[in-house]
Amino acid sequence: MATKRQLEKYRPFGVKGYVYSGSGSISVIGKICNSEGWKKLLLVIDPGVLAAGGADSIIKTVEAAGLEYKIFSEIKPNPLQVDIETIGFPMYQEFGADAIIAVGGGSAMDSAKGIAMMGDSGKTIDELEKILFALDPHVATPWHTFPMICIPTTFGTGSEVIRNAVISDVTGHKLVPMHDCILPAYAIEDPDLMATLPAHVAAATAMDALVQAIESYVSRAATEFSELCALHAIELIGPNIVRYVRNPAEEGPADAICRGAMFAGVSWNCSSIAQIHACNHPITEVLHIAHGDACAILLPWFVEWNGENKREKFWKVYNAMYPLETVAYKDFDLNVLVKKLMKLNYDLNILNNMTMDEYAKSRGIEGGCPDELCDQIIDMQFAGRDLPQYPRKTSDAEMKKALRDVNHGKYIYQPE
Amino acid sequence: MATKRQLEKYRPFGVKGYVYSGSGSISVIGKICNSEGWKKLLLVIDPGVLAAGGADSIIKTVEAAGLEYKIFSEIKPNPLQVDIETIGFPMYQEFGADAIIAVGGGSAMDSAKGIAMMGDSGKTIDELEKILFALDPHVATPWHTFPMICIPTTFGTGSEVIRNAVISDVTGHKLVPMHDCILPAYAIEDPDLMATLPAHVAAATAMDALVQAIESYVSRAATEFSELCALHAIELIGPNIVRYVRNPAEEGPADAICRGAMFAGVSWNCSSIAQIHACNHPITEVLHIAHGDACAILLPWFVEWNGENKREKFWKVYNAMYPLETVAYKDFDLNVLVKKLMKLNYDLNILNNMTMDEYAKSRGIEGGCPDELCDQIIDMQFAGRDLPQYPRKTSDAEMKKALRDVNHGKYIYQPE
Repeated sequence: MATKRQLEKYRPFGVKGYVYSGSGSISVIGKICNSEGWKKLLLVIDPGVLAAGGADSIIKTVEAAGLEYKIFSEIKPNPLQVDIETIGFPMYQEFGADAIIAVGGGSAMDSAKGIAMMGDSGKTIDELEKILFALDPHVATPWHTFPMICIPTTFGTGSEVIRNAVISDVTGHKLVPMHDCILPAYAIEDPDLMATLPAHVAAATAMDALVQAIESYVSRAATEFSELCALHAIELIGPNIVRYVRNPAEEGPADAICRGAMFAGVSWNCSSIAQIHACNHPITEVLHIAHGDACAILLPWFVEWNGENKREKFWKVYNAMYPLETVAYKDFDLNVLVKKLMKLNYDLNILNNMTMDEYAKSRGIEGGCPDELCDQIIDMQFAGRDLPQYPRKTSDAEMKKALRDVNHGKYIYQPE
Repeated sequence: MATKRQLEKYRPFGVKGYVYSGSGSISVIGKICNSEGWKKLLLVIDPGVLAAGGADSIIKTVEAAGLEYKIFSEIKPNPLQVDIETIGFPMYQEFGADAIIAVGGGSAMDSAKGIAMMGDSGKTIDELEKILFALDPHVATPWHTFPMICIPTTFGTGSEVIRNAVISDVTGHKLVPMHDCILPAYAIEDPDLMATLPAHVAAATAMDALVQAIESYVSRAATEFSELCALHAIELIGPNIVRYVRNPAEEGPADAICRGAMFAGVSWNCSSIAQIHACNHPITEVLHIAHGDACAILLPWFVEWNGENKREKFWKVYNAMYPLETVAYKDFDLNVLVKKLMKLNYDLNILNNMTMDEYAKSRGIEGGCPDELCDQIIDMQFAGRDLPQYPRKTSDAEMKKALRDVNHGKYIYQPE
């Protein structure tokens, strides 16, 4: 019957790991550790979050629960294998920790996953990546891995409900281990931790989550379950994103974005990226544009380009995002959705409503972003990988044209 | 990237256990066992299903995969602790099995769960029930339990995605162990196994699943995730149930009901029953009315009684069930939903459209079902358990009135 449990304020749902959500939900840490018998924790905390006091409430909660802890925060924006193997992992072992709590964005959670996957294997992360690749991701590993609680302090990674990690080796090559052994046992989605994000970070990370959800939803790799979660993510994020960015401290919208980002992650965990994430990384690297901003500026193009191939799905995206303006399928106009997404970027002040070229120049990148650089960006990651999951076949030349169009401001909203 | 895996015909999604679905999906058995390294299987098969050849395709699949197996089918409709402990469990041990495949309805899966939970604990099921009750259901047990694949051959139990079991001890008392250790590692929802159900069984079990979904959806214990899955179950079952019952061999509707029943189970696993399931068991016992039929005849009353307390949710139920007749919230009329559900029972020929009293008499139950028996039925299970999860407070007297009304045929559709 478990009546009491069913009516508790914070109740988990299970998608392999258990997800708690809601304002104040970090309070479940003590209960989790008590149930699991964990007494010593390695806190893996993003150094920026730590310095800004963004993990204070979590540290206090851990202390109040009488738990011992040590903090590992040698975490680069792209987490390094060497930091994990030579600092984080030995710290876990020497302390005799029982579990990890990761606090931050993707890099903190990926660092935690690196430590966790090593467990008692006696192997390095690059060796384990190969071993995991050969295993069914749902089958237990023959070695013991460390359990994790992941607590995001930003949106758009979904890492807390996703079974992979991205870790750079000494050559800069990205290892991408993928297995349920690094799917966190618990995720906690507490919007209070996002209440102080600066507006441009709030906007970029929430747009990252929205793009994840839309890409996952229209992907040819979508499953019934991933679609269900993706569309739910869109109906949580769409109607709340502008209000959230204008006031990240308002609980309702923040909570909706927080849960939306998590459902986007759950969806992504069993679906796939599409063209936006497939060419996103070099934009970030080369032009110093935040990942979420790079997602946002490509979204109107993405809908326009793929729209007719997934018309019914984009119609549902439209109705989920704009519940007060729903339309019948026969009345759905793709161009209206494209325009609304352009307006959304405008309202969120993505890239200060500049073109990529203008924005790069404003950030002191000499020469800005000429068309040739767009082509190079596509060559760096996208080229030759026209994956069958994409909603529409997309050649390198077509993707180059798309990025040039974005760069020229074709999808920047012009107010009347 | 895992491109190939993402595009495979059968892909699991994760809700602690992994769920496969679709016509022919039993073909994944070999792949699962190979990945897990399982070579010897205990097949726990419902004796009726076994005798009728309903497990033949599964046995063939197991043989074709080169797996060794033994069959345990000492399974009563209410599985007995003694059968599990003295026949099933020793069979697993002596054979040296690696895992269990359960084939059948709730009783086969519950029997499998009984064997699985014993594992290497050295304890009896009643002892383990108490131990599990004191544990957090999400935390690993200190003993090793046996892994399971559950393959339902009927709808409406949801047991394959639910973390509890019902097992009777020698006194007839029902043990209800509840823990993730008995949530099957894999569930396979293959509609081909339901293609030969007789119409009245198809109708009753599909209605059981629909009632589960609706009760779970409007329960006060519902979570965001349970609601998502419940409403999806309703939109799968509602528009397909009549067509399925009229031709269970037609793949499309059968597959929809199959997945709907699974999503109803996933939902129920993190939500709760309501008044229908809370008084259902004695109807089955006393009047020999199938469980699903007893669910179906109470559904119109359930909507009428709880409707105003969960008006918005029942409106969504309506739109999910009748996607071609959706209405705006302001135009939603609860009575229309009540009438449509009465008509649904009529179309499905539930209880041959007789009252409980008439039906009981037609089945040779002397005296049929007088009103006093209705009252006794409520006293047997419902009385004193007006759970806070119910959408509306319901006293014993109110529930007795409800069952009398049902008994008098108040909710039987009268054709023009």
